[in-house]
Amino acid sequence: MKARIFVTLKGGVLDPQGKAIHHALNGLGFDGVNDVRAGKLIELDLADDTNDADIDAMCQKLLANTVIENYRIEKVG
Amino acid sequence: MKARIFVTLKGGVLDPQGKAIHHALNGLGFDGVNDVRAGKLIELDLADDTNDADIDAMCQKLLANTVIENYRIEKVG
Repeated sequence: MKARIFVTLKGGVLDPQGKAIHHALNGLGFDGVNDVRAGKLIELDLADDTNDADIDAMCQKLLANTVIENYRIEKVG
Repeated sequence: MKARIFVTLKGGVLDPQGKAIHHALNGLGFDGVNDVRAGKLIELDLADDTNDADIDAMCQKLLANTVIENYRIEKVG
């Protein structure tokens, strides 16, 4: 079973990486960019008997810093 | 208009970040993990008249290193 974890910064949290990407896009001549936020994508290949609570625990304990980040779990197949 | 860019390493490319996450998950007692791949998620807030070719050009020129990375564009609204 595969699962994708999408980790994004919470709303009010400063995102210097996103700011740098935004600045670089402007420098390349892409003017229509209002905002950029950078996040993480983690693809897990899991044993078929892994339950949802285990995946959630992985996010809580390691994959996301829940103080400043949100996460979303998408199971694939 | 919002767009999400998913950047993932191509198949044969070594992924030390994924390896480290895999190792840490094992250390925390999660045994059912076969493989972990780490990627990037970039959320763009774009002007409504931005066309698909522009978004693709952003990926080609800056957001993804197409020698070792694949990217996927998902437009939201």
